[in-house]
Amino acid sequence: MPSAQALQLWAAFRAGPKQVDLALPQRREASERAEGPTAEPVGITYQEAPEVGGLWAVPRAAREGAAVLYLFGGGYVLGSPASRRKTAGHLATATGARVLVPSYRLAPEHPFPAALEDAVRAWRWLLGQGARADRSVVMGDSSGGGLAVATLLALRQQRERLPAGCVPLSPWADLLCTGESMRTRAAVDMMCTRDSLLEMGRWYLAGHEAQDPLASPVYGDFTGLPSLLALVGGDEVLRDDAVRLVCAAASGGADATLFIGAGMQHLWPIWAGALPEADAALGMIGTWVRERTS
Amino acid sequence: MPSAQALQLWAAFRAGPKQVDLALPQRREASERAEGPTAEPVGITYQEAPEVGGLWAVPRAAREGAAVLYLFGGGYVLGSPASRRKTAGHLATATGARVLVPSYRLAPEHPFPAALEDAVRAWRWLLGQGARADRSVVMGDSSGGGLAVATLLALRQQRERLPAGCVPLSPWADLLCTGESMRTRAAVDMMCTRDSLLEMGRWYLAGHEAQDPLASPVYGDFTGLPSLLALVGGDEVLRDDAVRLVCAAASGGADATLFIGAGMQHLWPIWAGALPEADAALGMIGTWVRERTS
Repeated sequence: MPSAQALQLWAAFRAGPKQVDLALPQRREASERAEGPTAEPVGITYQEAPEVGGLWAVPRAAREGAAVLYLFGGGYVLGSPASRRKTAGHLATATGARVLVPSYRLAPEHPFPAALEDAVRAWRWLLGQGARADRSVVMGDSSGGGLAVATLLALRQQRERLPAGCVPLSPWADLLCTGESMRTRAAVDMMCTRDSLLEMGRWYLAGHEAQDPLASPVYGDFTGLPSLLALVGGDEVLRDDAVRLVCAAASGGADATLFIGAGMQHLWPIWAGALPEADAALGMIGTWVRERTS
Repeated sequence: MPSAQALQLWAAFRAGPKQVDLALPQRREASERAEGPTAEPVGITYQEAPEVGGLWAVPRAAREGAAVLYLFGGGYVLGSPASRRKTAGHLATATGARVLVPSYRLAPEHPFPAALEDAVRAWRWLLGQGARADRSVVMGDSSGGGLAVATLLALRQQRERLPAGCVPLSPWADLLCTGESMRTRAAVDMMCTRDSLLEMGRWYLAGHEAQDPLASPVYGDFTGLPSLLALVGGDEVLRDDAVRLVCAAASGGADATLFIGAGMQHLWPIWAGALPEADAALGMIGTWVRERTS
């Protein structure tokens, strides 16, 4: 049963205009306010990271060498590091790690593989800044969750050092949108529709093969990749993207954990301080990341 | 990557006779030795529970009112409380709760719903022995994991008090065996085959509808049921039974967690002390159960 706070937030979503009905410039503007309900994190120092067009969230007691690379979501067409500033702060506190939120180029202006190239570059830059691969994880939400996993596939291909774990939140990892939940959870998902996902996917792919694992990692072979923790809402059409990622990760030889938050909508873990469920999700992520990076 | 101990155990399984090739009396005999590799638990007092034909495992510091109802596995045709004696002890230590392992009637002598009736009766008896529903969970492995979930569906139907959680291990929860993993993990699963599962399913069902959620809970509506934690091996044909249970649980309104142990075979959590992965699984179960029953 969702908390009273969650039910109140869902009611506000239901009352407001649907993002998917807006034109792209208005959707981009709206996506910058995604963290509106999120509480301001305490004890975080923010720094610019101009080399990757992003920001750092540094916790009071940052663990030596520990870092999180966080890839913001927005269907590969929306979003920015600033749109996940507070989430980065809460994650820094939860994990005891410095959190880097880089920019990456967006579609339709910059289609596949621009976002992936930028994410790989950000990981390399992070390691150059004193982060240790074995004390770091790659995270992301929505398309950023899919991109996080695609980044690991690209790093493996390029024989780069891999992080100690990967934590996709409400990941979008199948640009063909073939999961059963696309149909079975459509009536309860207030934020995503299959049609709008497919539209953004077309912009990102710009004719590239959707089943390329570097675009849709559910189709990938995960051999040699690190452990994975996926969190997703029970009321998301994207639920099965998370399910399929954990199955693929385990088949590839890494332990995989899936948490499905009952009654939760897309991206719920970003609303820390506003939803007790988000605070619990951050606690779970923090424990998982610390266990794998200490 | 599985531990050296796990790889050694899998090699022994591969070298030995396959249980599924044995006649039923020999399979029953072999199933009594399933816990062979399991370490003897320390600090556990065992007591008989003749009223339910089973046994109690009582830990040194049993938490007041906390209990686990544990349903042994064996395809509804094999197994006994004695075949999970050591597992019950390790679970008692991990959860700080008294663990009851009742008997239930087996097929083909006693087909559906005999096992379910006995499991429901064992839960009622447990509550009569001082267990508090809100401090107790129902667990089980393999067919016992499916039976654990079916028991909750039956208790809800009968308006009985429900436990605080449900923990199926390597559950068999679709007697039709329609999960994709039946095919995709067949080459790596050393313990279960779709054919032998279907044969045992036919014995248990004895003509009853396989899609009845009380026999195959993946087809059930989980509304009102408690949180669920499922553990399954990445190399099990039954993997998707666990996946489908957590999805159904979350759709019904309860938080659901899935852990897929990479490279793990059917039932791996019962080999505590022999496999580090089993010890880790017990730690995870203990934390989860304590959080929900304290």
